[in-house]
Amino acid sequence: MARITRVSPLAPAGFPAIPPVAGFRFATVEAGIRYRGRPDLLLIEAVAGTSVAGLLTRSATPGHPVSWCRKVLPGGRARAVIVNAGNANVCRGAEGDRAVEAEARAVAAALHCPPEEVLVASTGVIGERLPVERITAKVPELVAGLRADGIAEAARAIMTTDTFPKGAVAETAIDGVPVRIAGIAKGSGMIAPDMATMLAFLVTDARLPASVLRPLLAAAAEKSFNCTTVDGDTSTSDTLLLLASGRAHHHPVQDADDSRLAGFRDALDAVCLDLALQVVRDGEGAQKLVEITVEGAVSDPSAKKIAMTIANSPLVKTAIAGGDANWGRVVAAVGRAGEPIEPAALAVTFGGHPVAREGQAVPDLDEGAVAAHLAGREIALCVTVGRGPGRARVWSCDLTHAYIDINADYRS
Amino acid sequence: MARITRVSPLAPAGFPAIPPVAGFRFATVEAGIRYRGRPDLLLIEAVAGTSVAGLLTRSATPGHPVSWCRKVLPGGRARAVIVNAGNANVCRGAEGDRAVEAEARAVAAALHCPPEEVLVASTGVIGERLPVERITAKVPELVAGLRADGIAEAARAIMTTDTFPKGAVAETAIDGVPVRIAGIAKGSGMIAPDMATMLAFLVTDARLPASVLRPLLAAAAEKSFNCTTVDGDTSTSDTLLLLASGRAHHHPVQDADDSRLAGFRDALDAVCLDLALQVVRDGEGAQKLVEITVEGAVSDPSAKKIAMTIANSPLVKTAIAGGDANWGRVVAAVGRAGEPIEPAALAVTFGGHPVAREGQAVPDLDEGAVAAHLAGREIALCVTVGRGPGRARVWSCDLTHAYIDINADYRS
Repeated sequence: MARITRVSPLAPAGFPAIPPVAGFRFATVEAGIRYRGRPDLLLIEAVAGTSVAGLLTRSATPGHPVSWCRKVLPGGRARAVIVNAGNANVCRGAEGDRAVEAEARAVAAALHCPPEEVLVASTGVIGERLPVERITAKVPELVAGLRADGIAEAARAIMTTDTFPKGAVAETAIDGVPVRIAGIAKGSGMIAPDMATMLAFLVTDARLPASVLRPLLAAAAEKSFNCTTVDGDTSTSDTLLLLASGRAHHHPVQDADDSRLAGFRDALDAVCLDLALQVVRDGEGAQKLVEITVEGAVSDPSAKKIAMTIANSPLVKTAIAGGDANWGRVVAAVGRAGEPIEPAALAVTFGGHPVAREGQAVPDLDEGAVAAHLAGREIALCVTVGRGPGRARVWSCDLTHAYIDINADYRS
Repeated sequence: MARITRVSPLAPAGFPAIPPVAGFRFATVEAGIRYRGRPDLLLIEAVAGTSVAGLLTRSATPGHPVSWCRKVLPGGRARAVIVNAGNANVCRGAEGDRAVEAEARAVAAALHCPPEEVLVASTGVIGERLPVERITAKVPELVAGLRADGIAEAARAIMTTDTFPKGAVAETAIDGVPVRIAGIAKGSGMIAPDMATMLAFLVTDARLPASVLRPLLAAAAEKSFNCTTVDGDTSTSDTLLLLASGRAHHHPVQDADDSRLAGFRDALDAVCLDLALQVVRDGEGAQKLVEITVEGAVSDPSAKKIAMTIANSPLVKTAIAGGDANWGRVVAAVGRAGEPIEPAALAVTFGGHPVAREGQAVPDLDEGAVAAHLAGREIALCVTVGRGPGRARVWSCDLTHAYIDINADYRS
């Protein structure tokens, strides 16, 4: 397998300092599932009473771990999450389902909980047999190694073609009681989340039932993971989990619309967006992060569809890789999005500098300013498509030779 | 502008021998619109009484020539087609419309016909001013140079990033009278035709009214141009025209379903498919032609949507570039296509060699045979997605470094 060792130029300066979140411990080991010389297996342990919400890929060919999570998540309880990198356990028939159950049972036995409270996720190559015996054999070592301060190692253990580990943390309060949300994510290719990114795990000490976590998580994902794309290829394994230990001793909150959750909602949104953007920053081969804002559409969903069409256009992505303010390709993508627009109202700016206005090129284009913006690492593209109220913002990256290097070689 | 001089490895051995088609003459000149040292302007002249049908891009941001054709095609009559390469005349407001009208009027004056019988097409960069005065100035020279045997030069004059000229011809008969259909096309990037490829012009000596040409052309395009993709980026300028001079003296046929048109229909389908596949063979950076067959879907349109999702997947395209039988990525694309499938019935073959069956990897994979097939220039991928009657076949190409070289540099 090709190992890409150079870290993305868009990576944050380092992994953030994430203090422990009460009620959670982490352990990683090297199970040798596919990679050698690095941890590839993660166990997250949660205290009894922890609630959980999750969002899973809408793919019609989901991985076996996704099917398991879909079955057990309605219970709303979690004591553990076990995650491996290197093999996605997809398309393995009854053998794949048995492997997931074996993982859940092994962890459940070690933690003295029902298997239905063990969530499972796998990421890596699709279609190969998961050597599950290497995972179950490591469960005792994982349990013995659980540490409250292990989240940075956890983020490393779930990487595949990622070039840096991804973590985020936010502090807020519910009803005056301090609450913390921390999360890790992995993802670099096969990224066009339709529910969540490849894999992301969030933990909080908030005291919230699954019925409250679910709508909050769905809303946060809609504005973050579901607004990003690297290559338009929605994964078979997308899994986003939010576990809440209840160790923060605020008053119980039973309604997601409770005004006491305003701060928590904002913190959750911030952690999700932070992680989602880190995934795009680690987009396979990415040299530039592209923020695409569409305004003036007939509705917000229409704006989002147009924005995602631009974000997935290989011609727009290669133009940005080449530092070319090729707004004609942006217009072509707008035109093929299948949404109503007003051609005479079309406007395009790069970094705030107008390049097209009222459906045509601006006569007084400031080429130097546009070129300087496009030479940078973070590109802001804003497109007005009409006079409607619809607005959306999504994130993508450029398309470079390295994407092809990574994906023509991955697996072989 | 980057000039790609190496010819696609997938190119045919040479331009086909195309005899004249009665009623049509061709001329090309160097107008210096963008390129230097090559013809970039084409005039096709048709005899009085020629009928025409056309299909145009469904883009919501069509070029000005497309808008003109949309306006005049319902008349069903054509005396000429004028085409330039290097500038697509898109997003230029009233100036763009005036430019098209100036072209049509200049040709109409020279050929003594109404401007509404002059069709116009342009291909090249989007959003820049078309130097129309360079075109109108060349009309007398074009008219003076019209030749019945000029179709090969015509195919060259409309190229942009194309690496070879594209032509096709078929002979058939209507009611026992010999009839010929010849065509040329251009296209290499921004190819995911939603009506036709970038530009294609067909001429025939058949004696058929526009009302008969229209359904025949639509049916032929649906099975050819509309089943191809290079990069998923539908163009602003897609234009497919079929002109019929009526010089073949068969009995009039007034109904597209007339059984006497069976041979003509097959010939038209063959010419369209030949040209469409030449466009994919010249896909920007293409090293391999990929034929994707989807079977077992709930319907033909469902099969086509799944096939096009596979065809546009950058992960599938890069895997094929790398010679990797990565059927997991094929499964992931099937999964995200948004169509009903039966995961347990999934099967994948490369070159007829099974790699997955009944939803999982085949245990007895013939790796050598699969690798040998993937090392070739023409890849056949067949995917069974269920037990339904739906079936579709589409064509794509691999995604290589050269696509990025071409598109990060085009324009600058």
